[in-house]
Amino acid sequence: MELLRLGPLGHERPAVRDGEGEVHDLSPLTDDIDGAFLAGDGIERARDALHANRLPRLDAAGLRIGAPIARPAAVICIGMNYAAHAAETGAAPPTAPVIFFKHPNTVVGPDDDVLMPRGAAKLDWEVELAVVIGRRAAYLDSPTDAAAHIAGYAVANDVSERAFQIEHSGGQWSKGKSCATFNPLGPWLVPGADVGDAGSLGLRSWVNGSPRQASSTADMIFDVARIVWELSRYMVLEPGDLINTGTPEGVALSGTFPYLAAGDVVELEIDRLGRQRQVVKEG
Amino acid sequence: MELLRLGPLGHERPAVRDGEGEVHDLSPLTDDIDGAFLAGDGIERARDALHANRLPRLDAAGLRIGAPIARPAAVICIGMNYAAHAAETGAAPPTAPVIFFKHPNTVVGPDDDVLMPRGAAKLDWEVELAVVIGRRAAYLDSPTDAAAHIAGYAVANDVSERAFQIEHSGGQWSKGKSCATFNPLGPWLVPGADVGDAGSLGLRSWVNGSPRQASSTADMIFDVARIVWELSRYMVLEPGDLINTGTPEGVALSGTFPYLAAGDVVELEIDRLGRQRQVVKEG
Repeated sequence: MELLRLGPLGHERPAVRDGEGEVHDLSPLTDDIDGAFLAGDGIERARDALHANRLPRLDAAGLRIGAPIARPAAVICIGMNYAAHAAETGAAPPTAPVIFFKHPNTVVGPDDDVLMPRGAAKLDWEVELAVVIGRRAAYLDSPTDAAAHIAGYAVANDVSERAFQIEHSGGQWSKGKSCATFNPLGPWLVPGADVGDAGSLGLRSWVNGSPRQASSTADMIFDVARIVWELSRYMVLEPGDLINTGTPEGVALSGTFPYLAAGDVVELEIDRLGRQRQVVKEG
Repeated sequence: MELLRLGPLGHERPAVRDGEGEVHDLSPLTDDIDGAFLAGDGIERARDALHANRLPRLDAAGLRIGAPIARPAAVICIGMNYAAHAAETGAAPPTAPVIFFKHPNTVVGPDDDVLMPRGAAKLDWEVELAVVIGRRAAYLDSPTDAAAHIAGYAVANDVSERAFQIEHSGGQWSKGKSCATFNPLGPWLVPGADVGDAGSLGLRSWVNGSPRQASSTADMIFDVARIVWELSRYMVLEPGDLINTGTPEGVALSGTFPYLAAGDVVELEIDRLGRQRQVVKEG
């Protein structure tokens, strides 16, 4: 089962995809896929309604796919969470999760255009496993408690402008992470129960059809459970909050590939979580 | 005129204070002091209604003072924005605004308790001029355009845990800035027109009655107009967004003063914007 949101930006309707890939309207159950829905056992209620045939079929043809969750209260990012990516940027692997935030208004649909910010010179891609929080998490006792606080997973592109992030930032990365359209998310929110082990998912990216990143979440330095547990020591995680868990090697910052230009097509996918496709446009 | 929110956490009612300090109920005009209210000329409508005697008096005695705005979509902070504070931390003054974010759920009322996070050893205060955005701002032409996008100003305490922020963070400061209760705000939102020049406001803090910080917004490296203009190049600022504009010298990180302990009382004030008082408690 997958949750999604369909329709124009800001007017998406909630929907659910069954095991055969058929899309059903979720609006009989909720107005949106937001923190309140997730915290209120929404995913299990959606599953029950789907199995009981209580959700009408929806013709998704021609509808824009939005981000699969309503705008989060916070978009939290984990930096340098793959050793080979840390190495390609010239950094030592971190000894504890590195945390920064993006403006939540960066979240857009998985196939929306990515806008090149004015003055941008070093626009980069980052395929990432995104975690959506389902239950409030504060001071979890151990990483094994994390799963009960996770609603599900999605694909994220943690788009970055490296000159803004590194050269003009004074060292704080958020400056190159928060431009409009810088967080394509989706196509789906896949419930944790449907993903099973999030610790061995292949994740890949391409630019204009040429491969860029190809790794596995097994290569994370800090796994999802450790990340959620650790974050819960430094902040209160809320239902609907989004966590980008870091990107593997194969980004332009490495020097191996050119930065993005207007007209480029970026594609990203993660096993079980679906595929994104963005066209880069002048902002 | 000042805007404020009164009542229990999460159930605050909007109110307005007239020139004599009398409090009036603003709920005939709006359910909350949020982005939609601010973007919809809410402040001018409040002023008109107050002058026309259309807002009933409110007995504020005994009511908790909440943050003067609803939870923002983003809390954006400017780091190292006073030269003497940069010097006391051992850093060179920045050549462009340094940007980081806090989780928006850190925002609490001006007199609410500040909770010491578990494991905290270096809890610190930071009095800051807070700017609330009134109109969407993206790619402003120049700093002189900033004023039209500002709703008003407030006092903020950008509470920090320095070990989390600096020693355990891998260099990204948000880890020590996002714990619960880490952004007392208020007592009031003072409209830009009522503040006049935000560039020469005295700002001060005390711990247990002893002076700590005493400076002026005139000492900012980047003034408010420059900050808003610059931020609009790196993100879309939305109505209701909160910007903490940096703190002057006189924090515990300098080594001159001890860090906060449970039972300590922190007070902060800014000319024209009012005064806060927090008690530090175990979290």
